[in-house]
Amino acid sequence: MTLPLHETTIAIVGIGLMGGSLALALREQRACRRLIAITSNPVTREQLLARHIADETSADLQRIAAADVIVLATPVRAIIELLPRVGALARANSLVLDLGSTKREVVRAMEQLPAHLHAIGAHPMCGKDASGFATAEANLYRDAVFVLTPLARTTPEALARAQELVRIVGARPLILDAERHDRLVAAISHLPFAVATTLMHTALELANTDETTWTLAAGGFRDTSRLAASDVTMWRDILLTNHDNVANALRVYARHLDTLAQAIAARDETTLTTFLERAATKRRTLFR
Amino acid sequence: MTLPLHETTIAIVGIGLMGGSLALALREQRACRRLIAITSNPVTREQLLARHIADETSADLQRIAAADVIVLATPVRAIIELLPRVGALARANSLVLDLGSTKREVVRAMEQLPAHLHAIGAHPMCGKDASGFATAEANLYRDAVFVLTPLARTTPEALARAQELVRIVGARPLILDAERHDRLVAAISHLPFAVATTLMHTALELANTDETTWTLAAGGFRDTSRLAASDVTMWRDILLTNHDNVANALRVYARHLDTLAQAIAARDETTLTTFLERAATKRRTLFR
Repeated sequence: MTLPLHETTIAIVGIGLMGGSLALALREQRACRRLIAITSNPVTREQLLARHIADETSADLQRIAAADVIVLATPVRAIIELLPRVGALARANSLVLDLGSTKREVVRAMEQLPAHLHAIGAHPMCGKDASGFATAEANLYRDAVFVLTPLARTTPEALARAQELVRIVGARPLILDAERHDRLVAAISHLPFAVATTLMHTALELANTDETTWTLAAGGFRDTSRLAASDVTMWRDILLTNHDNVANALRVYARHLDTLAQAIAARDETTLTTFLERAATKRRTLFR
Repeated sequence: MTLPLHETTIAIVGIGLMGGSLALALREQRACRRLIAITSNPVTREQLLARHIADETSADLQRIAAADVIVLATPVRAIIELLPRVGALARANSLVLDLGSTKREVVRAMEQLPAHLHAIGAHPMCGKDASGFATAEANLYRDAVFVLTPLARTTPEALARAQELVRIVGARPLILDAERHDRLVAAISHLPFAVATTLMHTALELANTDETTWTLAAGGFRDTSRLAASDVTMWRDILLTNHDNVANALRVYARHLDTLAQAIAARDETTLTTFLERAATKRRTLFR
């Protein structure tokens, strides 16, 4: 950790949208001396070398042994499964960091890493509905909030290095504990996904008797349903590792949905206007 | 109706996003001889004249008496309220057409127009979350599906004229009866709005104890909640005039939401994966 960042070797495990964008951003910023990309996808490995994004590629996790910083950028449950092997392979004093979308279970698994390793959880608040290295871009992290979730064992040096990495890719670090992170993202990220996916199922059922329904889909449907197209494995892992918070958010959501449904059924203009006004006012102040 | 379109006088009543964009598109295409814009907003009237978009502006509905085609572009319930006065003022053989977002109640009110008038319902499938003339643009209708809902009394000439208007602003006419229109848009347009608005209320409640929630809002939340920022009067009218279809869509939605919530609570990986896969597959084929 005493090495300046630009003299380090960074290994990224999992080269999809997140890991690939990180590789592109680190290379663009000449952030490190050496970049090792670890992915089972041979096409991605070839592209990383051909485009001079990585200095070395491998399908073998063992190559993390050469790194000072190890970034795990797979779906959450793969991160949790990888961590014991990472602990056995990583060299002393290296920093293990992940980009998983939920943090409690990751951080719990990180606590089990050998004492000679540094560790911190991370979660960049950005994404796309498309996935895979083909969708990666150097600017993905620019101006995004990048949550860091320190563990009890996280040293000030490890936290500083993580913040340095976040800043060099153009993002803004925000320190939260894992419990709080998972509670907040349930409302602001996981609930929108659940809502979009449920919208697709409802439209599928309602359009079943009249396919012309799809012809009428315009920008409103497109945007509200967008998240439903996202990577299924990533989202399944998110919902499973944050099930309690998501279940709670869905309960609150169902209650508000019922309030709206009742106002519509009763043609209660006053309640309806107040309900719509409150949501519109907040939404307009959030995004201008 | 024997006059070619480019020799007609068109009056647009209500110059917001829809009416304003129609005025801009008609002017850009030199679609008519004379364009009369009727709006109570003096600033909009001034701009319409200064930018040579309308040939004449007025706050007085009486001016529709000078028009061959009268387009009602206010929120739905205002259209329904205006129609008896339009019937009394419009000159013989003129065509009355509206751009309201629901069609059954409008079409029912149109049936009461004097026999010497032509009438047809219409609904362009496009929009924005912002409203008012400042947000209008000449390209709004380009490539959009533009539903036409003929009445029992609609003549072939009236339908042909409406299709001509739709095509000249770059949109694609789609003929549906009003019943079917209202049923389909409940699923593909009104439900997404209800879903987005309910999402805002849920986030407001969940963020109430921790305002940092909003700091974590990224593209997913932004897109899924976008419709909640739309014009409240327009949407209140939509929900009230299509309450039965919307209530049904909300019932189906609540059922699918419950299926998802149960799979999450039970950590039922198989059900969850199937649920997510089905929505993702359909969403990806709809928008590429």
